[in-house]
Order: sequence, then C-alpha cells, then structure tokens
Amino acid sequence: MSETIPTDSPANLTPLSELGEFGLIDRLTADIKLYHKETIKGVGDDAAVIAAGEKVILLSTDLLVEGIHFDMVYTPLKHLGYKSAVVNISDIAAMNGIPKQLTVSVAVSSRFPVEALDELYTGIRLACDRYKVDLVGGDTSSSNKGLIISVTVLGEAQKEDVIYRSGARPNDLICVTGDLGSAYMGLLLLEREKAVFRANPDMQPELEGFDYQVGRQLKPEARTDIRETLSGLGIKPTSMIDISDGLASETMHLCKQSGTGCRLYEGKIPINPQTRELAMEFKIIPSVAALSGGEDYELLFTIDTKDYEKIKDAEGISIIGHMTEASEGKAMITADDKQIELTAQGWDGMKNDGRGSI
Amino acid sequence: MSETIPTDSPANLTPLSELGEFGLIDRLTADIKLYHKETIKGVGDDAAVIAAGEKVILLSTDLLVEGIHFDMVYTPLKHLGYKSAVVNISDIAAMNGIPKQLTVSVAVSSRFPVEALDELYTGIRLACDRYKVDLVGGDTSSSNKGLIISVTVLGEAQKEDVIYRSGARPNDLICVTGDLGSAYMGLLLLEREKAVFRANPDMQPELEGFDYQVGRQLKPEARTDIRETLSGLGIKPTSMIDISDGLASETMHLCKQSGTGCRLYEGKIPINPQTRELAMEFKIIPSVAALSGGEDYELLFTIDTKDYEKIKDAEGISIIGHMTEASEGKAMITADDKQIELTAQGWDGMKNDGRGSI
Repeated sequence: MSETIPTDSPANLTPLSELGEFGLIDRLTADIKLYHKETIKGVGDDAAVIAAGEKVILLSTDLLVEGIHFDMVYTPLKHLGYKSAVVNISDIAAMNGIPKQLTVSVAVSSRFPVEALDELYTGIRLACDRYKVDLVGGDTSSSNKGLIISVTVLGEAQKEDVIYRSGARPNDLICVTGDLGSAYMGLLLLEREKAVFRANPDMQPELEGFDYQVGRQLKPEARTDIRETLSGLGIKPTSMIDISDGLASETMHLCKQSGTGCRLYEGKIPINPQTRELAMEFKIIPSVAALSGGEDYELLFTIDTKDYEKIKDAEGISIIGHMTEASEGKAMITADDKQIELTAQGWDGMKNDGRGSI
Repeated sequence: MSETIPTDSPANLTPLSELGEFGLIDRLTADIKLYHKETIKGVGDDAAVIAAGEKVILLSTDLLVEGIHFDMVYTPLKHLGYKSAVVNISDIAAMNGIPKQLTVSVAVSSRFPVEALDELYTGIRLACDRYKVDLVGGDTSSSNKGLIISVTVLGEAQKEDVIYRSGARPNDLICVTGDLGSAYMGLLLLEREKAVFRANPDMQPELEGFDYQVGRQLKPEARTDIRETLSGLGIKPTSMIDISDGLASETMHLCKQSGTGCRLYEGKIPINPQTRELAMEFKIIPSVAALSGGEDYELLFTIDTKDYEKIKDAEGISIIGHMTEASEGKAMITADDKQIELTAQGWDGMKNDGRGSI
C-alpha cells in the first residue's frame, strides 16, 4: 500500500511539463472509439456536437481552479461566478450555437461561509439572465484547499449552421471580433497591485482609469451577438474558435484542424489604444499581449474571399490575415515587414502558473 | 485589496456546516428562472431533462476532489478513472435513460507524471467501453494541490420513459437492486489498512478475502441493466434514484420530491452476509452501513402495488418498504419491531471528511 501513482523509476516517467497542455490532450484522447452515430463531433473543437432530431446539441465544459485560473485576492466572487459561466457560453458562441442550459459544480474549503457561495451564485445567475441560459444542475462538495468550479453548458443549433475549427481553406480571410490583449493587461495590472498591496497593505491599488482592462479580465462577455451579425451580413464563416488562450494559439488550432498555414499581419491586430500604452509601460510588445495573453473571449473566424465586400465595413470586426497552403507555414508579418513564425502556448505545463502566459 | 470573501463581521456569516449539503443546494438553487421550454426538468433530480425532438437529453455532472472523494493512498488511478465515469453513468440509469456521451476535465498538480494521467484515462476508457459511452470532450489544467476530476454525462430517453424522483404515491412499494453497505465496509477496510500501513510500513495490508467489499468501493458498477430488466417485467417505476449517499438519504429524497412519507423494514434491507459480519467486527449495525454508508450505486425505486406479483420473484431486486402519506412521517421498522425516524446525511458540511458518513 502506497501512493498508487506509477512507480517506475523516475527516469522512465514523463513530467507533465514535457508535453504541455495540447500535447497532453492529444495523448489522452488519441484513438477514441465512438459507439453512437449521434456523436457528430467528439474532442477537438470548442464543443462536442451531438445529433438530436432536426437539431444538434452542443456540449462544452470547463474546470476553474483557485490559484491557477483565478486569484481570490482580487477576484470578487460575483465576477468569478459570472466569468465561469461566460467562458463556457463563449464556447457555444464559437460553434455558432445558442447557449441554453448550464450546470455548475462547486467544491469549497471551510474557509468560505455560505454568503461567499451566495455571491458566486449571484454572479452565475446574472450571466444566466444576461445570456438567457437555464441553470439546470447543481452540485456542491467540500475541498481540502480553495475553490474549484466546474461549469458545463449545453447549446443548440441547426446542424447546417454549426461552424467547426476544421473548415478553413487556403486564401480564406482571417477575421476577429472586438479587440485583443486587454484582458491580459488587466491581469498584469491586478497582479502588480497585488504585489504592491502585499508589500504595503496601506497602499491603495492604482486601478483607476483602467476599468476597461480590469473589466475585460474580471468580467468578460461572450460574443453571442456575432451569430446574428454574421447571419445579417449573409456570411457563414468557414471555421471559428473563441480566444481563450491567445490569438496565436487559436489561429494555430484553426490551421491544424483545417490543414492550412496562415499569415497574420501584426499591424491589423485590433488593440485598444490604452491597452497599447499600458503594454509599453509594462515593457511588453502590444501585439504579444494579443497573441499570447488570452482570455479576451472574442471570436476568431475565417471567411471565403468572396465575402470580403460584405464584411470589410462591418463595425467591430477586423480582417487580420489569411490562410495559406499548409506548406507555407504559420507566420506573422510584423509591422516592419519581417516574417516570424507563430508559436503558441496553452497552459505551460507545470513550469509556471498553469495559465496561458507570455 | 484583500481576499474578496464577504467581510461582514464573522458573527453575521454562516458556516457551510450549518446548512449541510442539501440545505446549501436548496439555498443556492432556489427560485431559479428558466427561459427555455426545452428545459423539462432543471435541478432536483439525478439528471436534468431537456427536450430534443422526439426524445429527451439527460444531463448529469459530478466533481471528484482528492482527499474528499478519494484517497490516493489506496485508490489505483485506473479504478479512479473508471469510478468517476460510473458514478455519472449511474445518474443516467437512475432516470431510466441510456448513457451516450461523456466529457472529462482533469486538474493535476505537478507531482503527477504523464503516466499517471494515462492510467486515469485508461480507467475512463474502460468504463466507456463497458457502458458504450462516447468520450467527447477533454480538458486538462494544472492544480496547486492534488487531483480534481469533473465528469459530465449525457444520456438519452424517450420522453415517456423518464422516471423522476417525484412520481411516488402513498402505498407504492419501495424496491432496491443488489445489496447495500458493502462499498462503505470496503472503505472502512481500506482506511483501517492505511492506518496500519502508516504505523508500520512493513505490514502487508489484510484485504484478502474481502475482494467484494473493496471492489464495491474502488470499482463500482452502474445498474444500466435494470432498465431492460424492468421493461422485461412490464414494470415502469413511479420514482427512481441511485444510491450514492446511502439508503436513508435517497429514500428521503424520493419522499420529499413525491410529497410522501415512508416505512422501511430493516429486516428486508439486502446486505451481503460477509458485509454483515464485517460490520459487526467494526462494531457497526449492518443496516446502518446500508442506510448511511453510500456509494453502492444500486437503484432505489418505487412501484405501484398492482405490480407486486410481477416483481416479487425477480432476482436481485428486494422489496424493502412502502410509501405512506406525508403526514405519517419517514420511518424504519427495526428487526425488533420498533419504529425509528429516518435521518439522512449527505456530505456533512465541514464537520468531518466531506463525504457521506455515519
């Protein structure tokens, strides 16, 4: 009797950091056997797709762990509840579906009073009201340490409306909604003020004037509105994904699943002016905050070039590049016209803080 | 800036232990607003029920936390993976549905090598093969401490076949599949041997001859076979639930949701003879292991008295009591003919180990 973790000599064991998040997921989900014809799409997209009569059900789930995905020092519980719902709703939006039902499981240590869970659920309910999603399941248990939240969301779509990661073709235009990098700069701001506070608890945090960045980090929104915008423009994207890990990583997912390469244009990446200034202050290249920062929950999608005229003047949508043949590789053209290879990070194994980082 | 847990004076805050699991769930899910007509049943049963064309989709989710729901010292990862799938599949069986798809999210600390996750997923896949369930979603992240597993399962049923907790009526017979209490005795055995091992690592664990009890704890099965058994007998239960928290607690759920009282007969509760002996050895009344032990994952259901003849000789199904008017209360008739009030424990808040216990 001993801890039942495999006990080969350590030399034969592989640390998680060696594979990284995406390598690990690939390994764990390789060669999965599917038994049911209703299972249209299993792992490998923002949500699973399951046939249900005329329609399909979309299914996505996320696990949020205190100290990894959020820091209780600066995350109000109401915002945390809201965000934990939104990040899942965003996955349904990324499939071009309509979010419908949600379940929430929570494990908490005894340091949380009932009122803390009330706050958390108030945030979850706010998101349910905002996005018209039904909270249909609840589960609570205790934890030895900290707060753990698991949210699962179900969505619905007509089968022909679902947009996968795998549909992009060479020459398709790469588009993104909103602006990128602000959520990450919000995180850096909060981390900085936390360090200041730790050093001197009498100091007041200097977050004023940065409501946008802090809000993007603590209380993101899901782009469920884009489905109607695009349908209004008469456009069906060829592929789509939401930006949780960063523009670089998500673009590479679309390329991998679609079997394409890509060219992104640094100068076209939409970045809020204040976020740009803030990045400079933090000595970060602004486009890097967009490429690797993550948590913006905007939508990244590709469209056929024939749809260019329809989309070119659409407010809040930027064309930032195009797909290529796979053989041309995945690259970004910098503002000074250099071509650099795209690299992506998911959570970085065990090497650092376990969340997408630069 | 400070931890954003509500900061009322402690006197105004409510410790989680004061409400207990069921009180807490009631509080957090009170007055939920539902927006979609497809949402047939939200919180309050083994699974949510969602209309999907001619059929319904069943949705259930569970969160398993190391140190609360399992102990790595004596839980092989392969068994843990298997069990984490089975406990969810059991929820679908409890609605009289067919499990179809599964998602698994895992958070692990860096003490786990990749090979440990391989083991865990091997167990999950074994359950998927055994129960013909498609693994359709995967998510991994790091954790600061230990292993956390969240499993969500989707099932399917004809709308008219779904069995809720709420359909029992006074006089309905209370039935249970298999036998009860063995999983709990298996847990006590494992805990005892762990203590022995801690005191003297040279001692070999004495688990031999108790394969059944240890197996019930570490590698339970879901009673997905009962759907066909009952349909073969021409019986549709009036209510049903699976036994995760213990017979007492689950019976009380059926009573509460159905608006009835009940009488259980201690002498009728099916208990494995060896489990009975083992309980005595541990100085536990055997029926208490069945009533409050939990984790047997058998099905508890009620049937109309007119179905008595059909079920009375069915192998592996025991009639253990009957429903009454709510005003008659919830009670058990002991072997020596005394009437005692039923009491139920879910996880016991923060007072002890956070899992169903005596």
